[in-house]
Amino acid sequence: MKTNLPLDADRLWADVMALADITDPARPYTRRSFTALFLEGRAWLARRFAEAGLMTRIDAAGNLIGRIEGTDPALGVIAIGSHSDTVPSGGRFDGIAGVAAGLEIVRALRDAGMRLAHTIEIVDFLAEEPSEYGLSCVGSRGMTGALDESMLALTESGGETLRDALRRVGGTPDELDRAKRDDVRAFLELHIEQGIVLESRSLDVGIVTSIVGIRRIEIVFEGEADHAGTTPMSLRRDALVAAADTVKSIRRIAERLAAEGPDYFVATVGILAVDPSASNIVPGRCRLIVDIRTTDPVLTARFADAIDRESTAHAHAARVARASFRTLSDGPPVACDAGLRDALRLGARDLGLGQMDLPSGAGHDAAFMSRICPSAMVFVPCLKGKSHTPKEWADREAIAAGAAVIYQAVKTLDRSLPQIRSQGAS
Amino acid sequence: MKTNLPLDADRLWADVMALADITDPARPYTRRSFTALFLEGRAWLARRFAEAGLMTRIDAAGNLIGRIEGTDPALGVIAIGSHSDTVPSGGRFDGIAGVAAGLEIVRALRDAGMRLAHTIEIVDFLAEEPSEYGLSCVGSRGMTGALDESMLALTESGGETLRDALRRVGGTPDELDRAKRDDVRAFLELHIEQGIVLESRSLDVGIVTSIVGIRRIEIVFEGEADHAGTTPMSLRRDALVAAADTVKSIRRIAERLAAEGPDYFVATVGILAVDPSASNIVPGRCRLIVDIRTTDPVLTARFADAIDRESTAHAHAARVARASFRTLSDGPPVACDAGLRDALRLGARDLGLGQMDLPSGAGHDAAFMSRICPSAMVFVPCLKGKSHTPKEWADREAIAAGAAVIYQAVKTLDRSLPQIRSQGAS
Repeated sequence: MKTNLPLDADRLWADVMALADITDPARPYTRRSFTALFLEGRAWLARRFAEAGLMTRIDAAGNLIGRIEGTDPALGVIAIGSHSDTVPSGGRFDGIAGVAAGLEIVRALRDAGMRLAHTIEIVDFLAEEPSEYGLSCVGSRGMTGALDESMLALTESGGETLRDALRRVGGTPDELDRAKRDDVRAFLELHIEQGIVLESRSLDVGIVTSIVGIRRIEIVFEGEADHAGTTPMSLRRDALVAAADTVKSIRRIAERLAAEGPDYFVATVGILAVDPSASNIVPGRCRLIVDIRTTDPVLTARFADAIDRESTAHAHAARVARASFRTLSDGPPVACDAGLRDALRLGARDLGLGQMDLPSGAGHDAAFMSRICPSAMVFVPCLKGKSHTPKEWADREAIAAGAAVIYQAVKTLDRSLPQIRSQGAS
Repeated sequence: MKTNLPLDADRLWADVMALADITDPARPYTRRSFTALFLEGRAWLARRFAEAGLMTRIDAAGNLIGRIEGTDPALGVIAIGSHSDTVPSGGRFDGIAGVAAGLEIVRALRDAGMRLAHTIEIVDFLAEEPSEYGLSCVGSRGMTGALDESMLALTESGGETLRDALRRVGGTPDELDRAKRDDVRAFLELHIEQGIVLESRSLDVGIVTSIVGIRRIEIVFEGEADHAGTTPMSLRRDALVAAADTVKSIRRIAERLAAEGPDYFVATVGILAVDPSASNIVPGRCRLIVDIRTTDPVLTARFADAIDRESTAHAHAARVARASFRTLSDGPPVACDAGLRDALRLGARDLGLGQMDLPSGAGHDAAFMSRICPSAMVFVPCLKGKSHTPKEWADREAIAAGAAVIYQAVKTLDRSLPQIRSQGAS
């Protein structure tokens, strides 16, 4: 790896570490969207944005945006960003690295005395990780017109709606149209790979070709919450028994589709909640969330059909009702923009970095941003591919290298985007 | 049913209903031990105890006790009671009915101008239902010398120890010996049946012959909390998959043992907790609590051995560790005292009530009390056998009839217990 990068790796690293420190101390690294800790992290970010000379605001969709005007406002915006929220007991880099990279790029441009023609915006998207309201990518949905009324009506377990939560973090859910943008000309996102490909090949950066589609399905079984001591086995209507059968079906069918190839396929039950959850009560209700990801939407449909059939049969066998089988969200696979990928490749080459093209198995805000503008991503290697765990790790130099690739690409795009647009208009 | 009972059915009913009203409004009927609501319920009870002329105190084990001195202190105590805590989303009668019955019996004696030779104590045992600390029957364990240091060291999810919690509700965990009693000559408990036998036979009361033994086992699987998008199916170490297999094993083996007969056998997984519980993280850890109940301890041992073997195999198959397989508590089956059962049968007969002998599938404080004194129970019918659910229901007259049986038995025992003791001493 070339270590003479056009930005300050230590300054960038210090930001990532400082934000990581803003965590629930009982379970590092946790900074869940909509919590007091999340707002504390954002307040810290907003101060750093301001110190870097950015005008800072919260948009209607609850995104934190830092902006520096270009010399030619008519050219529109090049946006860089990611998210500052985490999963429970997550890592220090997922999301944060991309926001901090954007900030460092702005500072590096300023330090180099450069003022671009395009306006630059650094975006901390709201709630990229699945929130307590059952929805992920809340902010990037909002910025791209994909956050609808039914989503705003989602509630967390305490009964608060996403609409009210959005208001709490400074958004204006009644004016969501104002968050939707038509002035963004390019979006670039740095992220840790969350897989083992770059590490295993000792490469510095990955230029993302496409992002998997993600469908989330809620399944609810309803039986009868009976006394665990006095209800004979033969009279039970145990919702957990149907749920356990369904977990087994999901695992078996996902393994089969993954083995078919060549397309990527994974499915996970990450949430299984038992109600009322007492050792001496037969479970009366059980709720599962199934997360399905693939580069081929046909596989998603085949999988959902099979689980629909099998979960119905499991409910019948356990004498419980399958009270819900509902798609919570469904994003198709997304290809990254060819022109932006060229600019990123060029940047990596000029910096002397090892690079490759690769798909993303994880969803990202860039997938939504591609609805309103050309979008692309840079992956940096992370230790053993671990993510969404406190063991998540990326090296200081790896993050700086990825940020430098975007820095180079932004300078390239500042010149080339107007030409592409004028050619497109001719 | 004879309706001319020697106590005030309406006054007794009003107490049960008033205490039921002290509930978490979001999920009636919930008054979990150690919570502010629980203490509110107890404060209400203590006022009612005082109005009935009882001296009221909290003992070292956190039991609320109301006492009225007998004419011959040397004879010792006849205790009557049950518990005022509930499971989450439980019912209005489980526990409460037995405490309120004791209180009404004292008032009925007073109204009849009767003063007994024995001292009478009404006991609201602490935390009969499984508490957040993983232990049930905290108060009756304490009163019978069965609450040890390892139990006091148990913690709830927030990290508070049972020792500290006990202090919070007025107990003195450092002087637990003071809670242990040697002056109780008889213990009587009224409870709803929580089964369908009395209702199906249109009987007024059940005289309990024995109480099932209950063993609770904790099983923990530990895998790896990986990203649900980027971790291929073949590389996963999913703790929930091993847990789902284990739920299936528990169900299958329990059904087999229950079908063997003649002994009663049930086993339940009422708690299954996934960690970290996010839709896009492969479950890294999964904890189950297994509740096993039978009238034959041999069946418990056979069942635990089988689940030990099968859960080990399931962990192996899912490439996770079985981090824990631990007995949390283990109470043997308990026979009720023959002399007390005779007194109860006599009482029911004198009142003209329909009665039968029957075993209890549920655990009760009486099972612990039998360690220090003769103990027995009266069951009253409840609607469709439902319990541990808001649908739990018992009729006003049914509760009053059960209380009246104990009222009669207490009067009988006040005369007969000293004779039995002097005969035993001769």
